[in-house]
Amino acid sequence: MALIDALRDITGPANVLTGDETARYSHDWTGKYVWTPLAVVRPASREEVAAILRLCAAAGVPVVPTGGGTGLNGGTFAEGGVMLSLERMNRIREIRPASRIAVVEAGVVLSAIHDAATEHDLAFPLTFGARGSAQVGGFLSTNAGGSNVVRFGNTRALVLGVEVVLADGRVLDLMSELRKDNTGYDLRDLFIGAEGTLGVITAAVLKLVPAARAHATAMVAVPGLAVALDLLNRLQGETGGAVEAFEYLPAAYMERLARHRPDLKEPFATRYPSTLLIEIGVTAPHEAEPLADGSLPVVTRLEDTLAMAMARGEVLDATLARTEAQRAEMWAVREAAAEITFAQKPHVDTDISLPLDRMQDFLTAMTARLHALDPGADELAIAHLGDGNFHYTAFPTRDDAPLLAALRNAVAEEAVRLGGSFSAEHGIGLSKRPTMAAHKDPVALDVMARIKAALDPQGLLNPGKVLP
Amino acid sequence: MALIDALRDITGPANVLTGDETARYSHDWTGKYVWTPLAVVRPASREEVAAILRLCAAAGVPVVPTGGGTGLNGGTFAEGGVMLSLERMNRIREIRPASRIAVVEAGVVLSAIHDAATEHDLAFPLTFGARGSAQVGGFLSTNAGGSNVVRFGNTRALVLGVEVVLADGRVLDLMSELRKDNTGYDLRDLFIGAEGTLGVITAAVLKLVPAARAHATAMVAVPGLAVALDLLNRLQGETGGAVEAFEYLPAAYMERLARHRPDLKEPFATRYPSTLLIEIGVTAPHEAEPLADGSLPVVTRLEDTLAMAMARGEVLDATLARTEAQRAEMWAVREAAAEITFAQKPHVDTDISLPLDRMQDFLTAMTARLHALDPGADELAIAHLGDGNFHYTAFPTRDDAPLLAALRNAVAEEAVRLGGSFSAEHGIGLSKRPTMAAHKDPVALDVMARIKAALDPQGLLNPGKVLP
Repeated sequence: MALIDALRDITGPANVLTGDETARYSHDWTGKYVWTPLAVVRPASREEVAAILRLCAAAGVPVVPTGGGTGLNGGTFAEGGVMLSLERMNRIREIRPASRIAVVEAGVVLSAIHDAATEHDLAFPLTFGARGSAQVGGFLSTNAGGSNVVRFGNTRALVLGVEVVLADGRVLDLMSELRKDNTGYDLRDLFIGAEGTLGVITAAVLKLVPAARAHATAMVAVPGLAVALDLLNRLQGETGGAVEAFEYLPAAYMERLARHRPDLKEPFATRYPSTLLIEIGVTAPHEAEPLADGSLPVVTRLEDTLAMAMARGEVLDATLARTEAQRAEMWAVREAAAEITFAQKPHVDTDISLPLDRMQDFLTAMTARLHALDPGADELAIAHLGDGNFHYTAFPTRDDAPLLAALRNAVAEEAVRLGGSFSAEHGIGLSKRPTMAAHKDPVALDVMARIKAALDPQGLLNPGKVLP
Repeated sequence: MALIDALRDITGPANVLTGDETARYSHDWTGKYVWTPLAVVRPASREEVAAILRLCAAAGVPVVPTGGGTGLNGGTFAEGGVMLSLERMNRIREIRPASRIAVVEAGVVLSAIHDAATEHDLAFPLTFGARGSAQVGGFLSTNAGGSNVVRFGNTRALVLGVEVVLADGRVLDLMSELRKDNTGYDLRDLFIGAEGTLGVITAAVLKLVPAARAHATAMVAVPGLAVALDLLNRLQGETGGAVEAFEYLPAAYMERLARHRPDLKEPFATRYPSTLLIEIGVTAPHEAEPLADGSLPVVTRLEDTLAMAMARGEVLDATLARTEAQRAEMWAVREAAAEITFAQKPHVDTDISLPLDRMQDFLTAMTARLHALDPGADELAIAHLGDGNFHYTAFPTRDDAPLLAALRNAVAEEAVRLGGSFSAEHGIGLSKRPTMAAHKDPVALDVMARIKAALDPQGLLNPGKVLP
């Protein structure tokens, strides 16, 4: 086939995979989506990416960019298309400590950036469970969130510049490292979160921050979500905004933890209705240097705040990590979430966000709707509470497609009704397109369609994703 | 005229100004631009804005949105067009302290938001000299910067949601208060910084932060810019990123201060080559409560850091504010900048940004180019140093248009050559369009033009601005 030969001319034959060689790229992490690509191409440079896109544009063949393959919404489904894997563009080009930036290619794995920053006593604060596989191109294209958003923002907030190859093969060089730049429209943020439908991100300039010298980490039982929000706001004031994680785990989570991961220790002997995993990071030496009794000021201060809250009845119980091992144990409990959630089938997993003060309203309304649809169904709602982001999962009693669809729709409907979003951090991909059609403002959809048509008039970039 | 009558039907006759009534809207703050609008319309609601835009779209008449009129680049030049002043849409609709948000209309003045946030012990951290006049619609449309960007980011970083009326009069409701939302393209950031060329912003959801309980403010003399960057990075680590301002004033500034504002006190008896105005804000009670000797921990710590830096020769002199009055004195010195700069004519004022570690390179190169073009010329470069943002002004010896243009071009050329931007925070407007044509990446310009055509096909929204 002429196209395959032409692709081989661009990248060398070893980097154009076809047939069985594409097996590793032909399904997603969840196993829900399986496809047969025309070929998988692995370019080594932005020039090769540009040549591939020119070729595919001329041939009218769809192009689907792919990274670490850790997405959850079928965003790299590529039946009959050319998959563009940027895994060979995996160089950290530069770290400039004085300017606090990292210049990276699209195929660099997130944990490699963490390691490289650490060598300079700096940190790239974006982190989530799939950090050992997720690549720059993927986490930028989905504007990934994770556990530290409450302090450092989503991916978007951590990116200074991007390099993009457009549908027609032209290179859009926005590799700025500037903190301030107002020269026309904000094109950078248009490509971040566009899931590869407007262009292919080939490199980025990332912000780094001072590495934390110490953490105060605690598991904290609270009576409810309103009190949790008060506690978050108080801690933000007391720490100068140094709360890095504020995660919510309900009693149902601890039950499932005991069932599926008995090796992990529950934080409390009692199962409280609501447990928070709170982490505060400090870079100031005076907060991180041990006192005479060996304790850290940041830990002592968190302990004092929690003790006072306990005296007021706002905190029911609390346990603080005294060692890095105890801290790791607490995080292991939290990071078992995906495993625990996906262990029971059938399930409807969702990723919604809400106004911070409407989170309890959502849970109350959603439990009622769940049981109206399926009286025997179970549910699990864990949250990046500081961001208003619930991963709500329903476990229906039967694997019935209309029921699953009705549950998925109910979650979106309740979120939107309360001023929330039906996709907080996982993006739209293929699986949430019906939800986009049903719940996104039609004017917004029309503006998106116009932008898509303006930048990809043939509709060849990751077709069938994001837009209904 | 039928159009004027139709406008009067929408807003009532008192809110359609023509002829001499438009005088206040017919020039910009600098006095460089003067124009005669067809009319100035002052709608009271987004529905009225929508009706006006539908009317003007049907009539093919340009619409120029205007706010507080404090822009510096002729961004509201409106010869023959309908000016849309949002000054009557000046309601702060809501402040929700637990969620840390303010919902505001486009005509609210920045300082009114400051005052309203303060009542809830919160702050809206965006601030700059024109805060008593600048309106929401204006500072969002220009993605304004100012003095606190080093800690809190540009306007873009402080906006959660926007409401926009499109060129055809449809309302795009993106009034989200969510911290995480990945439902399609980032339309919000497309309108922020678009200077009214893609739509008219009518309302916004803004982020609030805990109000600082105390500040440590100092004037610090340093030997040069490389040392200043080191000091900034050290202070960021020591304070957990609490540096709110890091401003640079050269000796030339102090000379001009003495000449034009003898009422203001210079920070030091000696005129050092480089002075920094540093401010650290703290919200933690333990940093803000006076010690036994009456001093504040945050001030004492800054003093210690500066004393150690002085011992190493990295700081030449320093003076700390012990009272709010002393702090206000220091800021008065900084905020006299516009007055001092514009006092001498002719001048070429610019607004550029640079990679943080290339700032000295720019100054060295620029001084040489200045004197090559005009050996007797003088210069003044003040900076929001923490953001890499210079306000560089050249004072040529003669008011000669080609010389002024050559100077303006030289500044842009040197900034771009060093990886910087020719417009950091003031935007493009009318005055920087030639610079856009000369120095912006042509691919980026083409993408912007496509987006403009997709959203405003008749080209009626603030025509002739931003895009060359």
